[in-house]
Amino acid sequence: MQEALELAAQALFLSNPNPRVGCVLVSPAGEVIGRGFTQQAGGPHAEVVALRDAAAHGRDVRGATAWVTLEPCAHQGRTGPCCDALLAAGVARVVASLADPNPLVSGQGFARLRAAGVQVDVGPGAQASRELNIGFFSRMARARPWVRMKAAASLDGVTALANGASQWITSEPARADGHAWRARACAVLTGVGTVLADDPLLNVRGVATPRQPHLVVLDSQLRTPAAARLFEVPDRQVWIYTANADPAAAAALQARGAAVTVLPDASGSRVDLAALLRDLARREVNELHVEAGHELNGAFLRLGLVDELLLYLAPVLLGSGARGLAHWGPLAALSEGERLTWREVRQVGADLRVLARVEGREDF
Amino acid sequence: MQEALELAAQALFLSNPNPRVGCVLVSPAGEVIGRGFTQQAGGPHAEVVALRDAAAHGRDVRGATAWVTLEPCAHQGRTGPCCDALLAAGVARVVASLADPNPLVSGQGFARLRAAGVQVDVGPGAQASRELNIGFFSRMARARPWVRMKAAASLDGVTALANGASQWITSEPARADGHAWRARACAVLTGVGTVLADDPLLNVRGVATPRQPHLVVLDSQLRTPAAARLFEVPDRQVWIYTANADPAAAAALQARGAAVTVLPDASGSRVDLAALLRDLARREVNELHVEAGHELNGAFLRLGLVDELLLYLAPVLLGSGARGLAHWGPLAALSEGERLTWREVRQVGADLRVLARVEGREDF
Repeated sequence: MQEALELAAQALFLSNPNPRVGCVLVSPAGEVIGRGFTQQAGGPHAEVVALRDAAAHGRDVRGATAWVTLEPCAHQGRTGPCCDALLAAGVARVVASLADPNPLVSGQGFARLRAAGVQVDVGPGAQASRELNIGFFSRMARARPWVRMKAAASLDGVTALANGASQWITSEPARADGHAWRARACAVLTGVGTVLADDPLLNVRGVATPRQPHLVVLDSQLRTPAAARLFEVPDRQVWIYTANADPAAAAALQARGAAVTVLPDASGSRVDLAALLRDLARREVNELHVEAGHELNGAFLRLGLVDELLLYLAPVLLGSGARGLAHWGPLAALSEGERLTWREVRQVGADLRVLARVEGREDF
Repeated sequence: MQEALELAAQALFLSNPNPRVGCVLVSPAGEVIGRGFTQQAGGPHAEVVALRDAAAHGRDVRGATAWVTLEPCAHQGRTGPCCDALLAAGVARVVASLADPNPLVSGQGFARLRAAGVQVDVGPGAQASRELNIGFFSRMARARPWVRMKAAASLDGVTALANGASQWITSEPARADGHAWRARACAVLTGVGTVLADDPLLNVRGVATPRQPHLVVLDSQLRTPAAARLFEVPDRQVWIYTANADPAAAAALQARGAAVTVLPDASGSRVDLAALLRDLARREVNELHVEAGHELNGAFLRLGLVDELLLYLAPVLLGSGARGLAHWGPLAALSEGERLTWREVRQVGADLRVLARVEGREDF
């Protein structure tokens, strides 16, 4: 199963919005006879790729065991059901890490295989497979994406000086690493404040990726300039969410290819962030990479909508009177803080990369 | 030499203000015949302890090699010169990690040994020995202590909420670890703000230590209450530095055993921090453990007087509108930040412990 998991990891930038799945076919004699991982959406799933790999090498799959990191699908999506392909090839046993998290189809693949006489075992590699697909599981189980907030700060928590200076607090290797995290996300989210201040592209650069994440811009008053550079990135969609759609402004942005969605909260002046996440799940966003300023970061934290923090800490102290990670609070007691659990801490270039999760947020 | 360094490390809480030194005696046949490390001030140095260890076991030291992590002393201090003891015992060779950093005596020990026909080699373990004695080297080379600023913050850099709440941001294991860092310092420094807010003891608790660090209180206007609990800790000195000594207030504090020193800066209203550090070096402070609030931390940083940062980061976000690590700035450009180099990052209990040095500060 370890090899199947490694294959699945190769789909990290590729298979969105489909889950990252790997498959290894092993002959009755114990030989690996086929390998595959899920391809770009619309392309074949891991099981089919592995079967084709075996066929391309003229290897007999009859009686083989398929090690696969997620339940083979039984439904007709953009591709044919993997169960049928495995059955047609004569596979005798399927070992799967996990059942499909989609409540509408969960268990159906296993049932169809078992009904056809295939031995099915479930469990090996479950934790790693779920982790690799935390966004897919989140979308299926919670109907919202896994929200990863990315920030770069000094060791004393400054993300921008009082005068706004923030380029660059962290080193080039940390920024490149940040692009790899963008690449695995289905969409990058930012606020209009960042668009107006930095005119960023917010695409993946310097990292080889077969696809670009889509871009979500939160823009309550539709202030995004039609001439913004973010419209120049090919091969991705731009989704602008607003509270207050001025028809002329909306038309100008739509003319640049953006989809404009009006989604006000109860106040009418801001975008409803919880509804936004539901809408992004509907658009098949698994992992949402939030790369915004401290105001928008604060709004997400205040509403308890952040699942994970990706924080690059630079080896520098930048003093007080500056902007922090997120504008929220002030809290009245330490117990009101957002508790985290460490996932990983490592050095990336000159900086420290801290991956931490909001406590309890992965319990779905 | 590795064993001598390990012995030296056993003097970490013990030998202040003397350096932490270890000594291993090896017979001509290659057997370890004596071990020692520097004892409490006034007690014997590592070489003498090792010679006594050999004698206690009836082992012949003649012709032996002494592996010692610092140049043996040639001067008459509180104890007799180690060189004479080594010569009297008939040691044939001395391997030392480093020369004594005191410019007044550096090289004299080696010279006396060589003049008596002893082979002297210098170098092995130099970096580790200096590191273990960074405070002693700082005092000798710069006439000021090595200043280690300790703080506990949330991952977003908050050390206290806007309402002052700060107990406890970090976990019990991190606080216990902090006591071990106090124990190795010659003195702990705090400000009168912390004394008035928390009435702390600022001694070492929960860690076995043969001595307590002295306590330095910065108190410009002599507001320390004579009834403060810090006066209740036995076996340490309390040194209060002030800018503006009211004789009655000074007398009340002196009556509690404190030494009161008037050391105003040019403004006359604050303590001169650079002069303070010189005075603490005069009082034989090697490592100074600064455990203060954000105002005093900011004053030390503003003047470039912090050498090292010992920061415990708790897995929690505490939001904005709160107190940061240090009140200084605002900076006009990122390049004005205090650049650090990472020394070590590790988890202590639930928290992350970050040890970082101000860039270039160890070049002395």
